[in-house]
Amino acid sequence: MENVLTVPAELLHKQLTTVFTTWGMNPDDANTAATIMVETDLSGVDSHGVGMLPFYQIAVREGRLHPRATPTIAHDRGPAALIDAHHCIGHVAANLANNTAIAKAKEHGIGVTAVTNSTHYGAAGWYARKAAENGLIGISLTNSPPLLVPVRGKDPALGTNPIAFAAPTNDKARPVLLDMATTTVAYGKVSIARRAGKPIPPGWALNPEGLPETDSAVAAAARRLAPLGGTREQGAHKGYGLALMVEILCSTLTGARIGKNETGHFFLALDPSAFRDAEGFSADLDDLLGRLRANTPLDPAQPVLIPGDPEHDMTIRRQREGIPLVPTLVEEVRGVCAESGAAFLLTQ
Amino acid sequence: MENVLTVPAELLHKQLTTVFTTWGMNPDDANTAATIMVETDLSGVDSHGVGMLPFYQIAVREGRLHPRATPTIAHDRGPAALIDAHHCIGHVAANLANNTAIAKAKEHGIGVTAVTNSTHYGAAGWYARKAAENGLIGISLTNSPPLLVPVRGKDPALGTNPIAFAAPTNDKARPVLLDMATTTVAYGKVSIARRAGKPIPPGWALNPEGLPETDSAVAAAARRLAPLGGTREQGAHKGYGLALMVEILCSTLTGARIGKNETGHFFLALDPSAFRDAEGFSADLDDLLGRLRANTPLDPAQPVLIPGDPEHDMTIRRQREGIPLVPTLVEEVRGVCAESGAAFLLTQ
Repeated sequence: MENVLTVPAELLHKQLTTVFTTWGMNPDDANTAATIMVETDLSGVDSHGVGMLPFYQIAVREGRLHPRATPTIAHDRGPAALIDAHHCIGHVAANLANNTAIAKAKEHGIGVTAVTNSTHYGAAGWYARKAAENGLIGISLTNSPPLLVPVRGKDPALGTNPIAFAAPTNDKARPVLLDMATTTVAYGKVSIARRAGKPIPPGWALNPEGLPETDSAVAAAARRLAPLGGTREQGAHKGYGLALMVEILCSTLTGARIGKNETGHFFLALDPSAFRDAEGFSADLDDLLGRLRANTPLDPAQPVLIPGDPEHDMTIRRQREGIPLVPTLVEEVRGVCAESGAAFLLTQ
Repeated sequence: MENVLTVPAELLHKQLTTVFTTWGMNPDDANTAATIMVETDLSGVDSHGVGMLPFYQIAVREGRLHPRATPTIAHDRGPAALIDAHHCIGHVAANLANNTAIAKAKEHGIGVTAVTNSTHYGAAGWYARKAAENGLIGISLTNSPPLLVPVRGKDPALGTNPIAFAAPTNDKARPVLLDMATTTVAYGKVSIARRAGKPIPPGWALNPEGLPETDSAVAAAARRLAPLGGTREQGAHKGYGLALMVEILCSTLTGARIGKNETGHFFLALDPSAFRDAEGFSADLDDLLGRLRANTPLDPAQPVLIPGDPEHDMTIRRQREGIPLVPTLVEEVRGVCAESGAAFLLTQ
């Protein structure tokens, strides 16, 4: 694409740590947040990597994100713990909580941690993937500001509340990795259609009257997303129920109130060897995934995929070719640097 | 409805225990399975209560279900355990596993148990609800024979693999209770449309070519269900991913091979007080549910519901009015009694 700046992962990482340390973040935390964001961009999840930086800058400016805050363990009871993020950047609190769940799973067979008083933590899948890299099954959930309209209602009431799940395979770099919003689509897909002047399918978004909206401009302004399923007939009560499950585990369980800029997260790590021999688990998972890949394809050129395949392939490609940044984003990063006093480093 | 036999819950329970003890099940196990099935019928989930009895009889006849088997704890490690069902009726193994998870959660804050070598366990939601009745958050998962066709594929590869989630509220009898197949609809909905000679919407089922099928007769014969979402554009890759998650937790984690008539289950119980004060959890959940119920309704006569509301209301109604059984089912139960030598007890 014309005018797209393609940068190596290392340069993007350096740019992010430069901004974060200028904000006052300590070097370790800056490295943690930058690493998570860059690996997210490498995997092709552009909506949740550096693309979030301008929003984080606004949150810093408005006092909702405290770059100097350090998360603490508020409660700790055997395999369970609650982390208080003290409004630090979500990635740092989430990484502490996820690592705590991983350590607890290695000790107890299972570890569950939750986070209160947090901010946006990036891509849910990054944390579940890390558990899988440690040989564990991982689950990562977060709540987010209201966009989802419950079935029968008109008003946004829950976030896109994603569910991420990962399981370790014999190919450590290629875990099973599901990372999905509990809405039919994330808001970004409506925005993209609006910019392109294209209509959207009826199961994606609603208008202020709570009815399916296919005009992407109207839908983008209404900021009302349909739960996964889209309509009641197609199972939207299930997407609504899953979003409520995530809300209870991230918000009610932690005391974080999204209306007061307190985001909550939930992490679970589980050691297969607490249930059966690890070799048997690996062999059976290989077998299951192999059978899915061997499913007769509708189109022989497009075989059945395992969740995580597209992200894995994109990571290999972008590690080689670099991370593409559209001009708007480059200018937004330049603006963040100007506002925060950090050096702007992004050049071809 | 004409010819519908309406029976009190106690009579249905007596009929079921009579059949089960005739099969050789011990009285405690017979009571457990009958109680779970009757409470499922009371809640209106007719597909998973006594309606399953004829299928259980076939499984007994074919040697896939061993009524005299007793489940055992195969592995036990702190908050985690694996139960071997030895092909007993699924309800009995699942109840042991769920109770074990509940006890572990009370001791450790969290309990996770899985079951191998099991059979059909009835409604997933019953077990999650039981955790909620104990003041805990509960999750219950099971795999099932292949019906779901993965995105891009043509062949059934995963079960309808339900996810049940429950959370305790101040009204103990009315927990949040989500119980959903990870397909758009359960197979039963296709069967009902076929019997009624009605078409089905395009996101429910597929034909043998893997394409959306609206002719319910063709769809019922093809036995291919679409993942929740229905089509790729509407998020079917998410339903597929959730079904795979359930399969890994119920099958890969336990060693149960569905192709060899080994069903697997997974239970999680979590004590909110391991994370925060129980009163704060209850108050915040009341607040969340209250806000959802107060959402502006599309139709003022149909307010926004909380998952579990319809089942709760139906339970109150059927406890008062009895459980309706269609003539076909009554005759099937009569046939089960005749084959097993149990007394037939169902009369108005």
